[in-house]
Amino acid sequence: MHAYRSHTCAELTKENVGETVRLAGWVHRVRDHGGVLFIDLRDHYGVTQVLCDPDSPVFASVEKVRSEWCIRIDGTVKARDESLVNAKLPTGEIEVYIRDIEILGASEELPLMVFGDQEYPEETRLRYRYLDLRREVMQKNMTLRSDVVASFRKRMWDINFREYQTPIITASSPEGARDFLVPSRLHPGKFYALPQAPQQFKQLLMVSGFDKYFQIAPCFRDEDPRADRSPTDFYQLDLEMSFVTQQDVFDTVSPVIAGVFEEFGGGKKVDAPGDWPQIPYKEAALKYGTDKPDLRNPIEMQDVSEHFAGSGFAIFAKILEQDGTEIRAIPAPNGGSRKFCDRMNAFAQKEGLPGMGYIFWRDKDGEMEAAGPLAKNIGPERTEAIRQQLGLGVGDAAFFLGGKPKSFERVAGKARDVIGEDLNLTDKDRFAFAWIVDFPIYEKDEETGKIDFEHNPFSMPQGGMEALEGDPLAVRGFQYDLACNGYELVSGAIRNHKPEIMFKAFEIAGYGEDEVKKRFGGLVNAFRFGAPPHGGCAAGIDRIVMLLAAEDNIREVMLFPMNQRAEDLMMQAPSDPTSDQLMELGLRIIPQD
Amino acid sequence: MHAYRSHTCAELTKENVGETVRLAGWVHRVRDHGGVLFIDLRDHYGVTQVLCDPDSPVFASVEKVRSEWCIRIDGTVKARDESLVNAKLPTGEIEVYIRDIEILGASEELPLMVFGDQEYPEETRLRYRYLDLRREVMQKNMTLRSDVVASFRKRMWDINFREYQTPIITASSPEGARDFLVPSRLHPGKFYALPQAPQQFKQLLMVSGFDKYFQIAPCFRDEDPRADRSPTDFYQLDLEMSFVTQQDVFDTVSPVIAGVFEEFGGGKKVDAPGDWPQIPYKEAALKYGTDKPDLRNPIEMQDVSEHFAGSGFAIFAKILEQDGTEIRAIPAPNGGSRKFCDRMNAFAQKEGLPGMGYIFWRDKDGEMEAAGPLAKNIGPERTEAIRQQLGLGVGDAAFFLGGKPKSFERVAGKARDVIGEDLNLTDKDRFAFAWIVDFPIYEKDEETGKIDFEHNPFSMPQGGMEALEGDPLAVRGFQYDLACNGYELVSGAIRNHKPEIMFKAFEIAGYGEDEVKKRFGGLVNAFRFGAPPHGGCAAGIDRIVMLLAAEDNIREVMLFPMNQRAEDLMMQAPSDPTSDQLMELGLRIIPQD
Repeated sequence: MHAYRSHTCAELTKENVGETVRLAGWVHRVRDHGGVLFIDLRDHYGVTQVLCDPDSPVFASVEKVRSEWCIRIDGTVKARDESLVNAKLPTGEIEVYIRDIEILGASEELPLMVFGDQEYPEETRLRYRYLDLRREVMQKNMTLRSDVVASFRKRMWDINFREYQTPIITASSPEGARDFLVPSRLHPGKFYALPQAPQQFKQLLMVSGFDKYFQIAPCFRDEDPRADRSPTDFYQLDLEMSFVTQQDVFDTVSPVIAGVFEEFGGGKKVDAPGDWPQIPYKEAALKYGTDKPDLRNPIEMQDVSEHFAGSGFAIFAKILEQDGTEIRAIPAPNGGSRKFCDRMNAFAQKEGLPGMGYIFWRDKDGEMEAAGPLAKNIGPERTEAIRQQLGLGVGDAAFFLGGKPKSFERVAGKARDVIGEDLNLTDKDRFAFAWIVDFPIYEKDEETGKIDFEHNPFSMPQGGMEALEGDPLAVRGFQYDLACNGYELVSGAIRNHKPEIMFKAFEIAGYGEDEVKKRFGGLVNAFRFGAPPHGGCAAGIDRIVMLLAAEDNIREVMLFPMNQRAEDLMMQAPSDPTSDQLMELGLRIIPQD
Repeated sequence: MHAYRSHTCAELTKENVGETVRLAGWVHRVRDHGGVLFIDLRDHYGVTQVLCDPDSPVFASVEKVRSEWCIRIDGTVKARDESLVNAKLPTGEIEVYIRDIEILGASEELPLMVFGDQEYPEETRLRYRYLDLRREVMQKNMTLRSDVVASFRKRMWDINFREYQTPIITASSPEGARDFLVPSRLHPGKFYALPQAPQQFKQLLMVSGFDKYFQIAPCFRDEDPRADRSPTDFYQLDLEMSFVTQQDVFDTVSPVIAGVFEEFGGGKKVDAPGDWPQIPYKEAALKYGTDKPDLRNPIEMQDVSEHFAGSGFAIFAKILEQDGTEIRAIPAPNGGSRKFCDRMNAFAQKEGLPGMGYIFWRDKDGEMEAAGPLAKNIGPERTEAIRQQLGLGVGDAAFFLGGKPKSFERVAGKARDVIGEDLNLTDKDRFAFAWIVDFPIYEKDEETGKIDFEHNPFSMPQGGMEALEGDPLAVRGFQYDLACNGYELVSGAIRNHKPEIMFKAFEIAGYGEDEVKKRFGGLVNAFRFGAPPHGGCAAGIDRIVMLLAAEDNIREVMLFPMNQRAEDLMMQAPSDPTSDQLMELGLRIIPQD
């Protein structure tokens, strides 16, 4: 017989009754029923009930085992009494009578229990991650992650992409976040950088003629931790294609993403790729207050400025006298109560705005009445015009925010989310996708008036060189995001592969040719030797798994995440270097006060 | 029609004759045949002949294109004249008459040609890697690599392993090489390390109950470059299993490796896993002079000390009076000429030894004669005994090296390789595998007499605690390598999962419990909470692809390798950090003289 096991803990059924078997695993829990010891023996695959009565030659040894000891037992498979069969367990028809036992690994007292649902502080969970990971939900999350990654790979190969590995110790990449640096020993005082994404390399692969590239790629950004972002390394499904338009990228990627959500979405409705809207960035900002809208929520905001211009509501009327201002309404079907409206007003104040005006419509003696101070100020005609524009009626409400859109859009978007949730408008059993398109290439710094890149500087401007010769703030890029349930899952672009258009694009943002060559020399040089049109995108693996696992923290779907201070308490990273290491790298630490 | 192509450059056949098609790709070469321009248009998939006669509306534009321009053409598919069909080309039956052309990306003068087989200095190739990669052999090597990795993945999933991603920005790992460090911004003065291998994490996964893990894992070692080693990052097929013996690991891994070699070995003979010998480390050193023997070479060295003890060959006789010395013979079938023997003697001298004694057997008037000075010194009886032990005859030779084995083993191994090559004994059309087993856990420093780990300190000693209580130099580990054709492809071990045995093992090498906890705390702590017996190994992906591609430099199978000075000339890494970056990291550069 094998040294450790003849079967896993998920395998034995009635078919095995009478056999002598060997099992290995962890003691999930022990119960003493009238002198007979029942152990749930657990491994990665399942649980088998093993038991030991006082007649067993090893009763004394079995009596000693405790939770989470790793043991090997030999025993005889017996059928359970009909009344004791556990139909929920694959091994529920049988139990194993222990005849021999070996302690493979004993355990000290446990800092956290594997059995049961007790909650522990995150610091405890991360410090003893190897115990935390033994829990059923973590085993499930990690195997889900493993399956999702494998499914992405399979789907990419199925559509004739190949996976290529790009360098990890390399040069700085221009993704806009902070690089992690790696000091060079052979060139003391010089540093490599870890790639924020394989952006330049995947574009170089297109210039090298590889046509279709993908990679489940480790990416590195030195960013402050957040619930949906790792502070160090994370994974993207990174892909790039030559000779494609924006629509080609959508047609390629959408079925891959949809397929994975269908496969692992636990039966929730997945919008069919053909139904994913393409929403211009500007429209998304207006309707949803964000470029990653949650479309499970049917609420769409509207511009209602015309009804407030010159109205009796002085605050809004004044606002509208300034350039670039708007009044927007958030309709709230079924939100028509003063209590709800006041709650939302308080929400806006908590978010740093002076408040949100509102109107709600109620029944008064069989007649519809518009309630709230705002309705009084603007009078019944304007109020009615607003109601009709928004398509609301008795029992509904509308909230209003005004000013320069940038000043309130973010809060408006959050208010929309809260309203959708609170009024049960948001369909929780659905994954709702939308491509956000037509991102502006440039933005103007309000204070300095300087034009800078709004997003990735490597996107092809719509209209090419001609567009760049007009108003820069009007230039849109072939640049896109995929939003799902309020998260940005994918981001990409058709790239600017023409050196002359690239230099012009950088010039507008104030970068001279020399600086562009210095910062992005690898890529810019390559474009001088017959670059193909190309484009692609990257999808956040951790975030997708987080959505599929219905978790709201990325650390629940990563094996060994850092804590909120970017520390690994289990491995004790980061730590002090030795003086030899510093010497070899030609570095000295500046004492911190 | 699609903006860039209706077909790839490998698709069109006689079936398409008469169709109007659109192709995009690179100008592989242009020929002018009597005023008609013939272009081989190339993409990732193949080549199509397109042509333009002076009647074409775009003849003037086509005339301008040069090698490696990226173009899009529209044209009509015509059948080639029977006499011009190129059967070697999938598109060899047709050609396309250009009616429209668009320059997608022009090219400046090329620093290296894609067409043809011209050789270029490595620095040129790496600086313009995107052009180098367009060459047929590089496209082939990179797609081979992509296929090999995919095949490994599929094979691992097929045997119920799952792939899990372990952290990359983490703590120092105890692999014996130098770590790459990553300074922390949130904790100035402290450093993360990049993993030399996911060793600790994969063991932690076993403690976490994941049972079977693999990963195509990026590994990082700050080592000086070598032909078969990347100076920065490289990839391993890393795997680990719980509840296994050494033989289980062999039975699991051997078919995976053999399968990949069968699939991609280009028809060379692959030894069947059942025939892979398990050679103890000590025996490998004796027979082959190395722990990564090339078994395509049938030569086995032998200990011939007894024939030299007290013999007339004073040098060897004296050597044998010292403890721990041996005389070893390298038989050289068909090497029986003075010329060859002298050449090998010179080889040994070039390698730093005083020389190699030899005997060769020749025919003298129908009688066998042993020639060479050594034979004279020891006399005919001893010479004959040696010949019989080695099984040699007329036309053969034997070479002799003496001393403490460590002083000459390496050269003996190289001499064996050279003899095998020169005498055509080494079968070039074969992949020959052997597991090397029973590595010693400890070695003694000849100078200090101190006992230290010979290899990985995490291996389980054969015989467990009991063995550690005896002579440390006699302790063998459950530790193993897989050798193939002179390369180490795989390395692994059954791990020491028992804290008390681990502390004892470290104590013998002079490490106290506190130091072990400090250096390997993550792992050692985990073993206190019910660790399962486990083991595994890691296979070098780059090296395997190198063997399969029949290349002898690892840079030929990596997309964007560093040069020999660990520089990326294309991306200009490493480079100077900005003073802001240094400030944020709390570092100062020590000026170098």
